[in-house]
Amino acid sequence: MGRWQPDSRGRLQEAALALYSERGFDQTTAAQIADRAGLTERTFFRHFADKREVLFGGSAPLKERIVTGVADAPATDGPLDAVSRGLDAAAAMLGEARRDLSRQRQAVIAANPELSERELAKLADYAAEIAATLRKRGVSEPQASLAAESGMTVLRVAVQRWASGDDGRDLSVTMRDSVAELRAVAARG
Amino acid sequence: MGRWQPDSRGRLQEAALALYSERGFDQTTAAQIADRAGLTERTFFRHFADKREVLFGGSAPLKERIVTGVADAPATDGPLDAVSRGLDAAAAMLGEARRDLSRQRQAVIAANPELSERELAKLADYAAEIAATLRKRGVSEPQASLAAESGMTVLRVAVQRWASGDDGRDLSVTMRDSVAELRAVAARG
Repeated sequence: MGRWQPDSRGRLQEAALALYSERGFDQTTAAQIADRAGLTERTFFRHFADKREVLFGGSAPLKERIVTGVADAPATDGPLDAVSRGLDAAAAMLGEARRDLSRQRQAVIAANPELSERELAKLADYAAEIAATLRKRGVSEPQASLAAESGMTVLRVAVQRWASGDDGRDLSVTMRDSVAELRAVAARG
Repeated sequence: MGRWQPDSRGRLQEAALALYSERGFDQTTAAQIADRAGLTERTFFRHFADKREVLFGGSAPLKERIVTGVADAPATDGPLDAVSRGLDAAAAMLGEARRDLSRQRQAVIAANPELSERELAKLADYAAEIAATLRKRGVSEPQASLAAESGMTVLRVAVQRWASGDDGRDLSVTMRDSVAELRAVAARG
């Protein structure tokens, strides 16, 4: 290891995920995270409103990226094609994160019912906004909701496959593969 | 109106949904529900552990029905076909409820973030169990999870269409139609 250190925000995230994994989310304080990162609590709160935001801070920009991807899809795209473009955008953003940290994040969330519900609510909120975007493109119901929710199914399954595996494939590849798998499942019966 | 009254449990459900709609879930007490139903608080607690159970009491038997439907599907069924059989079972059970009460239930849940998260967690739990059932039938991942989660997408969309509309169609018809719509969305693009 050289003398290079990630930025404060990255160090805080890494320290937070390590502590959430070791002792549980509820048992970890902001002060402990800052301490583990070699930073002050004041610095922690300059980057995050609270310790939940370490896990969910990327939520709004991710939604923005997905919705923009759907909205900007060519007019000839069917609803699921348009949603796939949003998922490509999501993969580009999420795939930049370290795979081991994504895996840790998922494990922490899975271990805590309150965080799991928050994660589900986040995806439901994405789905609602994607469905609204599809309706603006002229897609009617129930197709808009079905395509939007299917997209969130693919997102959840693909991120989990990518984070839990270590096959060297980019998230974007796993994402496209998961869309294809969904299509195959729907076609096959 | 004749002198016929629904049973105590049904009267309590109806009173609870009316009060949750009128004044909000958080502002309603078990005593008020019992009072509105012309029953005692003691009777309320003989039927329900708490006021949340009025909304979620059917959850465990519903899951049981769906999972049994999937498990008992013919061996030749593809994963989504098997899930559809589970959804048929769900439609048979849920379709017995009064449409106006189902609509009220949905509105109450949508208006309350905590209840919405509980509802999402319920569906995620169903999906996990359906995926496990599919894996026991020899379906591999990610197909099992994709089919299971797609089933929950259809369930959510179909119940909402059925409850919000008033087209006289049975829930089972709307459910099958929603499966077909999902297949069409996946096939089309």
